[in-house]
Amino acid sequence: MGDYAINEENKVRRLREKARYDQDTVHGVLDAGLVAHVAFLQDGRPFVMPMIYGREGETLYLHGGSKARIIKLLESGAPVCVNVTLLDGLVAARSAFSSSMNYRSATIFGTGSLVEGESEKLRTLKIISDHTFPGRWEELRAPLDSEIKQTGVVGLHIESASAKISEGPPDDEDFDYDIPVWAGVLPIVNQLGTAEDDPRLLTGVSLSPSIAALEGTRR
Amino acid sequence: MGDYAINEENKVRRLREKARYDQDTVHGVLDAGLVAHVAFLQDGRPFVMPMIYGREGETLYLHGGSKARIIKLLESGAPVCVNVTLLDGLVAARSAFSSSMNYRSATIFGTGSLVEGESEKLRTLKIISDHTFPGRWEELRAPLDSEIKQTGVVGLHIESASAKISEGPPDDEDFDYDIPVWAGVLPIVNQLGTAEDDPRLLTGVSLSPSIAALEGTRR
Repeated sequence: MGDYAINEENKVRRLREKARYDQDTVHGVLDAGLVAHVAFLQDGRPFVMPMIYGREGETLYLHGGSKARIIKLLESGAPVCVNVTLLDGLVAARSAFSSSMNYRSATIFGTGSLVEGESEKLRTLKIISDHTFPGRWEELRAPLDSEIKQTGVVGLHIESASAKISEGPPDDEDFDYDIPVWAGVLPIVNQLGTAEDDPRLLTGVSLSPSIAALEGTRR
Repeated sequence: MGDYAINEENKVRRLREKARYDQDTVHGVLDAGLVAHVAFLQDGRPFVMPMIYGREGETLYLHGGSKARIIKLLESGAPVCVNVTLLDGLVAARSAFSSSMNYRSATIFGTGSLVEGESEKLRTLKIISDHTFPGRWEELRAPLDSEIKQTGVVGLHIESASAKISEGPPDDEDFDYDIPVWAGVLPIVNQLGTAEDDPRLLTGVSLSPSIAALEGTRR
């Protein structure tokens, strides 16, 4: 795996020591997240929208209603910026100025194109499903033709990207370490809880393996 | 508290039954979140960046280095779109098509202006600090003049906004309820864990009240 070339678009300007440009780190953040924030232009103004996604190689797959504004815009090849951020902790320093958060963040820049053909649409919808629910696809009935028609899938090719990783204890000013105030990190734990049965669950149906495997895992 | 007027910008296009336009709901989502995704234009292209924030009335306060690109852009009054999304659960339906997530999401549109004057800057920096760390500001030394100078604070006036709330069990197609597959919700729990001491903590300094109050709370 290599590095993304640094250009005016993806260059990290602030806290450059936290910047990463390698594909491994960027892919790792994308793969760990559940929601992507997708920014685009609409009538010359910026918009941002949370979306479910899945990744394969250098392509991020997004989906929505086939006539949805965001899908029409993405398939037009307009420039798009996507950020995925995972918060890992609140960093309580000895001053407000040095207080911050620990996080893993990836920002990608690219342009989209419509996924066409029923078999490729199905294949890429499974990538999106597997991202949130690994193994669930095989437990469910096959998508109906009408469902596939109603869904638009867009592949966003990653043209450039960067990541920013903030971790560890507070980084206080040297002269602040003598202040007798507590400092440290409050971890943020994002965890999947215990599965809650649908009230209309059929009698005798138990938790499926894909869901059982997710219970209690960190995301 | 009233409603935001519905216009072409803030109108929710998909899953309209989940849309909310009342200030209470929008403020509630903003107040519950830890990170805002701020979208803006740079050289005619969309960018999105995660930022810490705080809210007072109809103003969202953002901060950064006083010479940071994002602060320069925000203070120029350029149009900005901000989204805050909280994920509450993975919704495992009886089909991939009906599977989704439960979430609370708020999107605001506005323009920024620079916060000027040392006392107003301090007041609004405290709003941002209180959002993440209620009560911490009073436990810390006063910000230095140099720190205040290095920090740019921008007030983003909420010109229009909407929220989208998705909750409850899966909403399957009528003909799918007879399929003997498990369906339900996997809750996503975002919780602050046990505070971890800074390795350079002075001997005898114990957890401060503001941090102790946050331990174990849900965010």
